[in-house]
Amino acid sequence: MLGAFLQAVRQAHPLIHCITNYVTVNDCANLLLAAGASPIMADAPEEAAEITARSQGLTLNLGTLQAGRVPVMLASGRQANRSGIPAVLDPVGAGASAFRTRTARQLLEEVRFAVIRGNLSEIQALAAGAGHPCGVDAGDRITPQTLDAALELARQLARRTGAVVAVTGETDLVTDGRAAFCIHNGHPMMRHVTGAGCQLSCLTAAFAAASPGQTLQAAAAAVCAMGLCGEIAYARLAPQEGNAAYRDKILDAVYRLTPAQLEEGARYELR
Amino acid sequence: MLGAFLQAVRQAHPLIHCITNYVTVNDCANLLLAAGASPIMADAPEEAAEITARSQGLTLNLGTLQAGRVPVMLASGRQANRSGIPAVLDPVGAGASAFRTRTARQLLEEVRFAVIRGNLSEIQALAAGAGHPCGVDAGDRITPQTLDAALELARQLARRTGAVVAVTGETDLVTDGRAAFCIHNGHPMMRHVTGAGCQLSCLTAAFAAASPGQTLQAAAAAVCAMGLCGEIAYARLAPQEGNAAYRDKILDAVYRLTPAQLEEGARYELR
Amino acid sequence: MLGAFLQAVRQAHPLIHCITNYVTVNDCANLLLAAGASPIMADAPEEAAEITARSQGLTLNLGTLQAGRVPVMLASGRQANRSGIPAVLDPVGAGASAFRTRTARQLLEEVRFAVIRGNLSEIQALAAGAGHPCGVDAGDRITPQTLDAALELARQLARRTGAVVAVTGETDLVTDGRAAFCIHNGHPMMRHVTGAGCQLSCLTAAFAAASPGQTLQAAAAAVCAMGLCGEIAYARLAPQEGNAAYRDKILDAVYRLTPAQLEEGARYELR
Repeated sequence: MLGAFLQAVRQAHPLIHCITNYVTVNDCANLLLAAGASPIMADAPEEAAEITARSQGLTLNLGTLQAGRVPVMLASGRQANRSGIPAVLDPVGAGASAFRTRTARQLLEEVRFAVIRGNLSEIQALAAGAGHPCGVDAGDRITPQTLDAALELARQLARRTGAVVAVTGETDLVTDGRAAFCIHNGHPMMRHVTGAGCQLSCLTAAFAAASPGQTLQAAAAAVCAMGLCGEIAYARLAPQEGNAAYRDKILDAVYRLTPAQLEEGARYELR
Repeated sequence: MLGAFLQAVRQAHPLIHCITNYVTVNDCANLLLAAGASPIMADAPEEAAEITARSQGLTLNLGTLQAGRVPVMLASGRQANRSGIPAVLDPVGAGASAFRTRTARQLLEEVRFAVIRGNLSEIQALAAGAGHPCGVDAGDRITPQTLDAALELARQLARRTGAVVAVTGETDLVTDGRAAFCIHNGHPMMRHVTGAGCQLSCLTAAFAAASPGQTLQAAAAAVCAMGLCGEIAYARLAPQEGNAAYRDKILDAVYRLTPAQLEEGARYELR
Repeated sequence: MLGAFLQAVRQAHPLIHCITNYVTVNDCANLLLAAGASPIMADAPEEAAEITARSQGLTLNLGTLQAGRVPVMLASGRQANRSGIPAVLDPVGAGASAFRTRTARQLLEEVRFAVIRGNLSEIQALAAGAGHPCGVDAGDRITPQTLDAALELARQLARRTGAVVAVTGETDLVTDGRAAFCIHNGHPMMRHVTGAGCQLSCLTAAFAAASPGQTLQAAAAAVCAMGLCGEIAYARLAPQEGNAAYRDKILDAVYRLTPAQLEEGARYELR
């Protein structure tokens, strides 16, 4: 059933407005093109909300954050809410600096997000902000041991914000506060490629944009697709190749991914 | 005859100052190196004009535009005019936001460009600014059906600005307002690589810089070269490869392109 | 003996804070991951010093410098000094504009760097600032003819600043003002890849961070490693491949480089 969400992206060609960091932005643009979506990057206060209004989805990514970009993110986020298009928050570095944590929380207060996608420590930083001190002390990774606690944390954040929450790690969790996908796609080598998470957030926006009203399933499909492409790419890696070849092969796998492949390759269970 | 223009770049090694967006800037730098030119990126008001004065060509690209970069672009553009080196305008997103359209027109008023390179909708946005409402309603693509109208539009913009105008699409048009090259190189998959247009604008600056006084032919040679490398790269693409491999293979094709290959592979007619 | 320094990076996984340009930043991040380190990019005044305080190494790179980033670099540099972690200066473009030269000198006055890494013209620009007019007039390249003069220049800068100075070119020089490594690794094609120098500066920070108190040897090991990977990558280049494939193959070679390979492949003499 998840294959249909990829098909929807390939048919709708959604335009995704990305306000994102300058480290991984090129890969984000090529990832969106690989998936069948179109990227547009614009972060000037003079135009950001206008660009959002022309788009079908929005990604706000806190990497290389600057103070001047915060009101721009807020304006684009509010425009996405007014337009009824999905906004995705990638709270890169929340918990790593007070500035990023504070900004992530401000965005959560003033924008309704369709999806929040981060790793466990970032999601913890957001959850802690609401006075839910977190009992998960396994650091940055979701492992079988920490799965239940991480899922409870994600569910709480989803209920509080109304967003689908996607926590990515060894196992990925995607929940709307009630149903939850536990996803087992992916490969450990993806941690050695910069921006795999940023790319996934953009992909999630494209999937959500192409399937309105089905955000939970669309987000789960995006997470499965990215992980599956990480597996496909790893299988194609020659012995001498490293993380640069791997980065490109992941993008190439997304470009060639078919709905049937996604359908067959997605490995998840519902909780 | 176009091969000689590539030869000139390989011999002159022109230094090209790029004030450009942070999405595709790395590919622009590697593209210039592949062609035999040298890139320099600098966009601080304290140094931009000084860097332009040391360069042999300038590219101004409106992607991820910020208001603070507009006076920097004006200062570098004027310095290019004073120095007598070619300035290339890539009006990325003109027509997509009022800010970009307004900035593109301001640059056109205050800087004499050697070449303006954009897609049809961007060129339309510039042409409309002068009170030439555009009769081309085919959107973003130049097709056989819209070719004549697009060529007339490009010729008018070229005559009004004194710049060579390059409109890229399924067919590419390069005109100085009188003579025109209709260029049939390229491959549709290039639309799935972010920044192919940005790279072409940088390449055009390098070609124009290396052949002073022959801007029309140099720009046409750059457009043919980029499109031809898109064809060569596509022919080398393995079935599993996608837009990431394609992006690299285009750059690699530019790196290995010989004047004789360009001479033989350029497909154009004069109009 | 140099292989041990790579081994140390692979074991310590140092977090390297990079304040760097937007042209080559993605390659810098992937290079650090390839080496076994972790990158973090942050350049907002609100958080930069806080991020430095969480890191094990710092790189300050002057590419695409903006005035607003200078106090951020100073704050992070001072924090690195307080924390006792190595700070690496890459004075990209020193000598190419007054702004960059001035900023590089200001950083040298207010921050104690563990390593300064640049090409000959950049190092000359720094040395000249101290009233040591430079007798090396061979421009940007270290050749056998200019080696002695370049080494004397590097030694003077090292003695004046207390930093290890690495001058990269056809031959690379690494000196603490007394001992000097003359390194013969590398391949001329590395000059056709944008950001090879930026990547090396980040790698040097990772090597220095993982081997405290052995900065001279660690920096020499990083320079040998990068050059050796340039050689390995060149040997793997197919006839049709160009600088894009080469860029990726260098990163891949770093990813796969073993301490034994580095030990065996490092080509240097002590002076």
